[in-house]
Amino acid sequence: MNKNLEIIRKKFESDNYAVSLGVALDELTEDTIRMRMRLRDDMLNWAGRPHGGAIYALADVAFSVLGNNTNNMSVALDCSITYHESPDPGTMLVVLGQTLSETRRTAAFLFKVYMEKEGDLTLVATMKSLVYRTGKPIDPDAG
Amino acid sequence: MNKNLEIIRKKFESDNYAVSLGVALDELTEDTIRMRMRLRDDMLNWAGRPHGGAIYALADVAFSVLGNNTNNMSVALDCSITYHESPDPGTMLVVLGQTLSETRRTAAFLFKVYMEKEGDLTLVATMKSLVYRTGKPIDPDAG
Amino acid sequence: MNKNLEIIRKKFESDNYAVSLGVALDELTEDTIRMRMRLRDDMLNWAGRPHGGAIYALADVAFSVLGNNTNNMSVALDCSITYHESPDPGTMLVVLGQTLSETRRTAAFLFKVYMEKEGDLTLVATMKSLVYRTGKPIDPDAG
Amino acid sequence: MNKNLEIIRKKFESDNYAVSLGVALDELTEDTIRMRMRLRDDMLNWAGRPHGGAIYALADVAFSVLGNNTNNMSVALDCSITYHESPDPGTMLVVLGQTLSETRRTAAFLFKVYMEKEGDLTLVATMKSLVYRTGKPIDPDAG
Repeated sequence: MNKNLEIIRKKFESDNYAVSLGVALDELTEDTIRMRMRLRDDMLNWAGRPHGGAIYALADVAFSVLGNNTNNMSVALDCSITYHESPDPGTMLVVLGQTLSETRRTAAFLFKVYMEKEGDLTLVATMKSLVYRTGKPIDPDAG
Repeated sequence: MNKNLEIIRKKFESDNYAVSLGVALDELTEDTIRMRMRLRDDMLNWAGRPHGGAIYALADVAFSVLGNNTNNMSVALDCSITYHESPDPGTMLVVLGQTLSETRRTAAFLFKVYMEKEGDLTLVATMKSLVYRTGKPIDPDAG
Repeated sequence: MNKNLEIIRKKFESDNYAVSLGVALDELTEDTIRMRMRLRDDMLNWAGRPHGGAIYALADVAFSVLGNNTNNMSVALDCSITYHESPDPGTMLVVLGQTLSETRRTAAFLFKVYMEKEGDLTLVATMKSLVYRTGKPIDPDAG
Repeated sequence: MNKNLEIIRKKFESDNYAVSLGVALDELTEDTIRMRMRLRDDMLNWAGRPHGGAIYALADVAFSVLGNNTNNMSVALDCSITYHESPDPGTMLVVLGQTLSETRRTAAFLFKVYMEKEGDLTLVATMKSLVYRTGKPIDPDAG
């Protein structure tokens, strides 16, 4: 068992923003993550479609967890998101993330957000993200 | 008076996501926007800091309004955000946006998000965004 | 045989910039591309390392070809590139590209640039790109 | 006089890639830069238009100089470029860059590329960029 994964899994439970959005963590490994979020009515924009900010929010929550799974406090530097298609209100969004590269002080990640509908996954957005690793432990007592 | 600005101003009032975040529209012109949002406790991440997704949300709400101020239904293609500094919980965020360029079918925008504290503005994030203009009127009865 | 692929393959031969950089097209399909370029001395920066602009150039040449492989004149809207590692001077760079999504008027692509060294591929950069499709044929006589 | 600016000015003279592109440095301060480059025939793409990679190259050369003007060896992490308009072959491109933010280990910059034609500047591209500062001096003998 990887202690560092347990540390961020535990921390994630107290993430107010993720809780308020209803984001659930399905799977976390050393270099991948899978999360999901139901698109609620309070996430719709003025056109009655799921807001780009809500789609981004799911990817960003996944980024925050995957980017902090080495017990090394990391801060977001940059995210670039492309929107491929507008998901339907009320559907479930699923995000799959993976680590692209790591150096001592920075790391890059790729996230794909899908709409899940009748068992099919449709690509909704792709996000490329960067963190800076501060070098401070998230849990000073671990290890 | 610019009718197109009134159309999107009115629409914005029924933006569920913006309402749930508490975003207020201060100013909208043909090529600029100013909005603000108080950083609430439900916008904090597991480290107790304002979530990157909440900062993005404010910029994205401004993008949605500025990008749709020509009575031409526009959809987000891409957003790239750089985080400069972590704002303090409880402070007010202010976003200033401007149009960079427009063609018949696409438009580009730049947004700067600031933390307002004791009268000073500190740069928190910069976002560069693109829309595709569908050519359909937001309000078919206007003009 | 796909006529549209032949049209852009042929056009690519007269791409001055690609010729001056020495970019070679290895493979082009309806949704993937593979190209390569040797890192020459005239591509080094002041620190004696391959210039970021040269690495981008290879990815961008691939983008220009893959983004125009449907006989629909397409123009670049946006590219976002992350640099993972500095490749060694004199080595061969290989770029692999794939189409992420397409609508009638826009399309998104992902490119990964690798350094090839002693048979191994090391990830050097990742680029996410967007085109706008003008709707004009590249070869009006085709089809 | 700022010694750090002199260090990178001097280094820039031996930048092979910048020399091969014909990039000239007009002005460099602690937080701004101005450079220019003539769009040559060998920078055209298969459609006979200036290649996106050549436009990026100018912005990236400016990034490399402005990002290294503190005698702190810095490496590119990420660049995001939006293309607003296709410049005319043979015209002069001008890039204006500014520092957006700096921390001890990272810095962010914004670059605007213009086409200069009959005395007018037309916005061609906007680039947002990030460096990681290694902490190693560019000139160990300075200071």
